[in-house]
Amino acid sequence: MPTNRQIILAQKPNGKLTAESFRLAEGPMPSPGEGEVLVKARYVSLDAANRAWMQGVTYRSALETDAVMAGGSLAEVVESRAPHLKAGDLVFADTGWQAYAAIQAKHLEALPKLEPVTHLLSIYGVTGLTAYFGLLRIGDPQPGETVVVSAAAGAVGSIVGQIAKIKGCRVIGVAGGPQKCAWLKDHLGFDEAVDYKAGDVRRQLRALAPDGVNVYFDNTGGDIFEAALFNMANHGRIVCCGAVSQYDDAPPAHGPRGVPGLIVTKRLKVQGFVVMDFYDGPNGKAAALAELQAWVAAGKIKVQEDVIDGLENLPAALIGLLAGENRGKRMVRV
Amino acid sequence: MPTNRQIILAQKPNGKLTAESFRLAEGPMPSPGEGEVLVKARYVSLDAANRAWMQGVTYRSALETDAVMAGGSLAEVVESRAPHLKAGDLVFADTGWQAYAAIQAKHLEALPKLEPVTHLLSIYGVTGLTAYFGLLRIGDPQPGETVVVSAAAGAVGSIVGQIAKIKGCRVIGVAGGPQKCAWLKDHLGFDEAVDYKAGDVRRQLRALAPDGVNVYFDNTGGDIFEAALFNMANHGRIVCCGAVSQYDDAPPAHGPRGVPGLIVTKRLKVQGFVVMDFYDGPNGKAAALAELQAWVAAGKIKVQEDVIDGLENLPAALIGLLAGENRGKRMVRV
Repeated sequence: MPTNRQIILAQKPNGKLTAESFRLAEGPMPSPGEGEVLVKARYVSLDAANRAWMQGVTYRSALETDAVMAGGSLAEVVESRAPHLKAGDLVFADTGWQAYAAIQAKHLEALPKLEPVTHLLSIYGVTGLTAYFGLLRIGDPQPGETVVVSAAAGAVGSIVGQIAKIKGCRVIGVAGGPQKCAWLKDHLGFDEAVDYKAGDVRRQLRALAPDGVNVYFDNTGGDIFEAALFNMANHGRIVCCGAVSQYDDAPPAHGPRGVPGLIVTKRLKVQGFVVMDFYDGPNGKAAALAELQAWVAAGKIKVQEDVIDGLENLPAALIGLLAGENRGKRMVRV
Repeated sequence: MPTNRQIILAQKPNGKLTAESFRLAEGPMPSPGEGEVLVKARYVSLDAANRAWMQGVTYRSALETDAVMAGGSLAEVVESRAPHLKAGDLVFADTGWQAYAAIQAKHLEALPKLEPVTHLLSIYGVTGLTAYFGLLRIGDPQPGETVVVSAAAGAVGSIVGQIAKIKGCRVIGVAGGPQKCAWLKDHLGFDEAVDYKAGDVRRQLRALAPDGVNVYFDNTGGDIFEAALFNMANHGRIVCCGAVSQYDDAPPAHGPRGVPGLIVTKRLKVQGFVVMDFYDGPNGKAAALAELQAWVAAGKIKVQEDVIDGLENLPAALIGLLAGENRGKRMVRV
């Protein structure tokens, strides 16, 4: 009888995530019930949110230990007991970190066939849609405005900056290290880049945006959030997408200075979102995907992916992502 | 030759504001130039913002020492050298803390004559309009939602809570001391009141709003902001109106915890504003004043004013306001 390779969350981290939190296991092959599908994970998505789930209740329940680590995959249907899906269909599914999973089919939909299929996890997946809706619906960037994005070389940030360029903005990316910063400017076409590892992001931003920042797309929280907040222009918008600086440790003891004082005096809007909130309606998911495809086809968005081989490498892949070692969308091929 | 009694900002406070920062003086009677009016201050408005101006640049320049303390008044035109104003007209003017001022008339407008004239500084002045636009345009409260307001017994807060009741919300006020809390419920019709001096506002709010807070109208910042943030419901709105807890001291070393983490996971909108941003257009100032007048006439809003006599009492009036001793709109009759 075939077995199912799995990564188990052995213990919740206390401080920085390490490989100790995980163990490899062999579980039984799941069997789909009525209304379910058996899927095989092809690419598991790595996201900073995976780490946030270990801290407690977010938009999903906190994780349990001694269970398969939670995570989403681009998966292929192997056996279907649901009328709208058949073997060979590709779906996004909450498989967890394992090779096979039996999943309720009700909320799954067959994805379009396109090459490379990895794009279904990056630019045409939650990553691309998060960048698209967060920037355009909450940030509302206008031509000529200055847009700053943190974790700019990451999956979401690299797309945010390119969409802001398409919209006629001046774009400043915040990233770690001179190589990433050079890549943002030379390869992705950002106007400027700030290396947060070089220190004093607040002053670096002030020098690059003396008239203030109109839109700040925040993927990090913490000190970079504070540095951007102090550099906002009047009526600026801060898009709160994630707070990766705050996930891989105990919850921070303090928040950024200037809250709420600067929000008042600069008349800022600071708003969080979850991408699914924007999926419905005529300007929802389908329209967004069509626009993203057109931009990719026209060469206006360069898609950067970081694919690692082997289910057993999932823990290291997540630990490395939290340390900022990836460029673009990181995923593990199973 | 008549003289002009003035309160001078003798030195900027270092920590809590005290009477040491001010001195009484006699200046020359000003003489209006072409396009100016000479006005006599009748009621000087006291606002927490007066203290914020001493800290640095806000929406106006920082104050200078050895100059007349800045402040707004309900003032009467004594002599006009501008065609659209005549002696006897009432105006709002940036007179500063003095009996007489010569003011550029261009941005002044004659106010309607109504009794009591003090209402022009409270419910029909910046105070009432701040409550109205901040709550309705940014907070967007819906019937049945839970609205929390801090500094609830203050000038703005007492009106915010009453408008939220008109809109069919459940209203919780945060104020200091059992007397104020009882007054909010018994006199103004708030549903609940939280005494922040009794400690643990976060837990008190959780008990009173177990399903979460939909709209938080923040007049205080600091610990009360943090307590509300942790109790927000998904898709909640935080209206950032002022941060009185942070004005009367050095700028705080840290901001509230949960920023931006909770803003993301709860999909919150946190927005600051300045009331003048809403004055124009068909739903602007005139429409707001008409609605406020109708509510006052119908007895749906009770106007609370705290009038102190004597220009020389302005410093004590401001110091007391920062300590939270007032109920409703505080002003000094000159």
